[in-house]
Amino acid sequence: MAISWTRRHILSLADFTPAEYNVVLQTANSFREVLSRRTKKVPTLQGQVVTNLFFEPSTRTRSSFELAAKRLSADILNFAPGSSSLTKGETILDTAKTYLAMGTDMMVIRHREAGVPQAIAAEMDRMGVSVGVLNAGDGQHEHPSQALLDLFTITTLLDQEHPRLEQLQDKKIAIVGDILHSRVARSNIWSLTASGAEVHLAAPPTLLPKLFADFVTPSAAIPSAISGPMGSEPVAEAQTLTRRLFLHWALEPALENADFVMTLRLQKERMTHHLLPSLREYHQQFGITRDRLKYCHPDVKVLHPGPVNRGVEISSDLMDDPRFSLISQQVTSGVAVRMALLYLMGSRTEQA
Amino acid sequence: MAISWTRRHILSLADFTPAEYNVVLQTANSFREVLSRRTKKVPTLQGQVVTNLFFEPSTRTRSSFELAAKRLSADILNFAPGSSSLTKGETILDTAKTYLAMGTDMMVIRHREAGVPQAIAAEMDRMGVSVGVLNAGDGQHEHPSQALLDLFTITTLLDQEHPRLEQLQDKKIAIVGDILHSRVARSNIWSLTASGAEVHLAAPPTLLPKLFADFVTPSAAIPSAISGPMGSEPVAEAQTLTRRLFLHWALEPALENADFVMTLRLQKERMTHHLLPSLREYHQQFGITRDRLKYCHPDVKVLHPGPVNRGVEISSDLMDDPRFSLISQQVTSGVAVRMALLYLMGSRTEQA
Amino acid sequence: MAISWTRRHILSLADFTPAEYNVVLQTANSFREVLSRRTKKVPTLQGQVVTNLFFEPSTRTRSSFELAAKRLSADILNFAPGSSSLTKGETILDTAKTYLAMGTDMMVIRHREAGVPQAIAAEMDRMGVSVGVLNAGDGQHEHPSQALLDLFTITTLLDQEHPRLEQLQDKKIAIVGDILHSRVARSNIWSLTASGAEVHLAAPPTLLPKLFADFVTPSAAIPSAISGPMGSEPVAEAQTLTRRLFLHWALEPALENADFVMTLRLQKERMTHHLLPSLREYHQQFGITRDRLKYCHPDVKVLHPGPVNRGVEISSDLMDDPRFSLISQQVTSGVAVRMALLYLMGSRTEQA
Repeated sequence: MAISWTRRHILSLADFTPAEYNVVLQTANSFREVLSRRTKKVPTLQGQVVTNLFFEPSTRTRSSFELAAKRLSADILNFAPGSSSLTKGETILDTAKTYLAMGTDMMVIRHREAGVPQAIAAEMDRMGVSVGVLNAGDGQHEHPSQALLDLFTITTLLDQEHPRLEQLQDKKIAIVGDILHSRVARSNIWSLTASGAEVHLAAPPTLLPKLFADFVTPSAAIPSAISGPMGSEPVAEAQTLTRRLFLHWALEPALENADFVMTLRLQKERMTHHLLPSLREYHQQFGITRDRLKYCHPDVKVLHPGPVNRGVEISSDLMDDPRFSLISQQVTSGVAVRMALLYLMGSRTEQA
Repeated sequence: MAISWTRRHILSLADFTPAEYNVVLQTANSFREVLSRRTKKVPTLQGQVVTNLFFEPSTRTRSSFELAAKRLSADILNFAPGSSSLTKGETILDTAKTYLAMGTDMMVIRHREAGVPQAIAAEMDRMGVSVGVLNAGDGQHEHPSQALLDLFTITTLLDQEHPRLEQLQDKKIAIVGDILHSRVARSNIWSLTASGAEVHLAAPPTLLPKLFADFVTPSAAIPSAISGPMGSEPVAEAQTLTRRLFLHWALEPALENADFVMTLRLQKERMTHHLLPSLREYHQQFGITRDRLKYCHPDVKVLHPGPVNRGVEISSDLMDDPRFSLISQQVTSGVAVRMALLYLMGSRTEQA
Repeated sequence: MAISWTRRHILSLADFTPAEYNVVLQTANSFREVLSRRTKKVPTLQGQVVTNLFFEPSTRTRSSFELAAKRLSADILNFAPGSSSLTKGETILDTAKTYLAMGTDMMVIRHREAGVPQAIAAEMDRMGVSVGVLNAGDGQHEHPSQALLDLFTITTLLDQEHPRLEQLQDKKIAIVGDILHSRVARSNIWSLTASGAEVHLAAPPTLLPKLFADFVTPSAAIPSAISGPMGSEPVAEAQTLTRRLFLHWALEPALENADFVMTLRLQKERMTHHLLPSLREYHQQFGITRDRLKYCHPDVKVLHPGPVNRGVEISSDLMDDPRFSLISQQVTSGVAVRMALLYLMGSRTEQA
């Protein structure tokens, strides 16, 4: 595999190039092959140390990264926030530097505040060390590995041998749910618009951003707009990619002839903050059901980053229907994609 | 070793055949040999993933399974209930399916509710996947690996080279303590009665089942009976095995000429529920002491699944006396038996 | 490397010989070389089990031992106090015996009470088993691996190829902070006085021992003395080593021409116990700043065991200044020194 990878950290998809997306997809696909063997392990990262710094608790994503690292034969350190030095007054940067000094080669970082992985990566660069930082979810900002595994899940479905970003050109993809607070949505918007897909965001007005430029990133100069309840007009066109992004206050225009429906996890605390009346009402208006899929393309597939609130974001029977649900494939893709990301960062490290 | 193993899941000992017990004993004995080497590791499960789903916290059993899996060179994922998706509203089945989709080959499951491992195993079968489920304790129902390590501890004591179920034929085994709430007792009753041993259960009336059929399993059609305070009459005879099971409200008839005394852990919360007056009174009536062992066979040995409340179930000096106590051997056996169970499930998986 | 190591447990530095210090330094230095390779792993402890029994929570030290063990290819068990059998009434000795029976070869033990690792080691010896016990911090008593990594950090700075205890002969080393409650200070006093260095302890009167003999160890017959606010007189001379130990109630005499300044972590709970007025006042009187380093030798270096309260024990800019701060090197040394300790204990085990 003759690939070229120059990115030391994976913090955001905002500036990912099509070539980078395709290297990730190609590399993940080669690891998917490894995972189909009986011995699902390669010695790629033997003797290297991957540290999981999960300041925000997580089971699913941490396990996925842990398994990816183990299958690359890396040694793994897990930072446990409960019994941590943080309660002893240490700064987050000092915690990261401690794990650096122990010999960490790559850090996988999750924090409830946006920007923490970026700040740690900047400090590592300032120190002139070659450690790589991977953002595993920072506040409501980004969750790049989730969007990349979503992309891999969709593109391998379209071409199992050669998944490529370009396969999504002109596909219609609906993202439904709490767009406003979702780091998954933000990262997916970058990858999907980069692919040339038409991206339709659907949410109740309280969970949809007012100004798109504010929403995506303060530094990205993207024309902002918002559609009325039933309306739909393009929001952004920028850079070398034709971006086609539409926002809706209702579900139907987003679903209409959609090839893929990405549902987002609804945080129950949104209700206590009066952004939502009830889970039941949310489901009635924005829940994906077998009935509502009739608006979509006949071959439509449904995704969800998990964990799912059954009967809220998706009806329970639909979630379990392999003709429509890609949820299980997303989890499987997650390990292959994270192996690819750690592998690529490790390859880059060699050149440093 | 030419063994045949067809069982995908290990959920209960209720339907274990003598041949299956003997395959487990034989396999565990070969791993006991591995554990006596300086390098206590074999590559058997290299590249396979064992996931510990311990919904109920545990140190001892989880560590034992973890070490067993490590010595078979498996990769291990630990599901941590504290920081889990469960608090995020995910169902237990969805949690299990997530770990399945990540690539889990075997799941070791503990839950405070009876039936959870069975429900997960049934769902895995329904999905047509070959993952194996091992019950590491489900509520007050069963704890098969504990009973199998007890069996291995006893039978290797009787014949170190060729431990076999049949060695317990006509041995008298007393099980003393909180029978009613004990998953350890339930699993041991299946294995010990299958062996042809005479099993005597002794407990205060509040901690002994009223109807044996209700107690063991609703589906097993076993004649029920209960002996009076000093009486003793056979409870069950079924299937191809001669079952000899006796219940006592006092200690002495159970201990009389017993070859093995299995003590059970007393949960302190039984007292707050008024099932017991005090630990002290329990010890006076049912605690195993050097003095009380005089009722037993001169070569009697004492077992306890741990952790022990010193001076409650067993007197402290007896617990530490290697002439009588098998407690340490039980822990050692646990690793060999769990290696055997994972190995056998893994072998079965190959045929699937 | 022809080394001789006869010590089964590493519990205290009180009776370490110069030869033992030098074997640790020499062995750690060879592992430092391993850690500079791309594949930072050796098969030394393959198939052996290192159990971390951290009854007191810790992230930093536990991770350091865990990484050291992983790089020696050992299998690691982590005892998690939160979900432990301790809450189930098991004694600490029984917990240790359980892990012994599972097949533990070495135990790394931390406990908030002084003497726990020693008690466990004594019980292991009484049982005639060859398991090694390493004290990873017991109450306010000792933390040998921390003092050894401090020693390694300093001596490799003085001679990168051949770090030796004797290099510290006649060096002046200041230890500043909460001496009274510090296990780090206690262990460092043993190693530094053994080296022939002049050791100056500086602290507010409330955080300095009244009688040195009481402080270091009840069993060591060391003449006791304490200097006045500005005074300084020798405290201890014993054994084959010329010990030179001075106590100060002020910072300046300790810093004067010092070659190394070891700062200690200030526990914030000391203030709630009225031993300190405020962190601010502490920093004004005993905080190490760029300005105060002018009292020291021009090549002075500053150490801290971490985690640092920035701006309390050390000013933030000084902590990040690589010309003065050895804090990062200490963390790196920690992995090499702990690999050395586990390796040496493992070598000893072979002879047993």
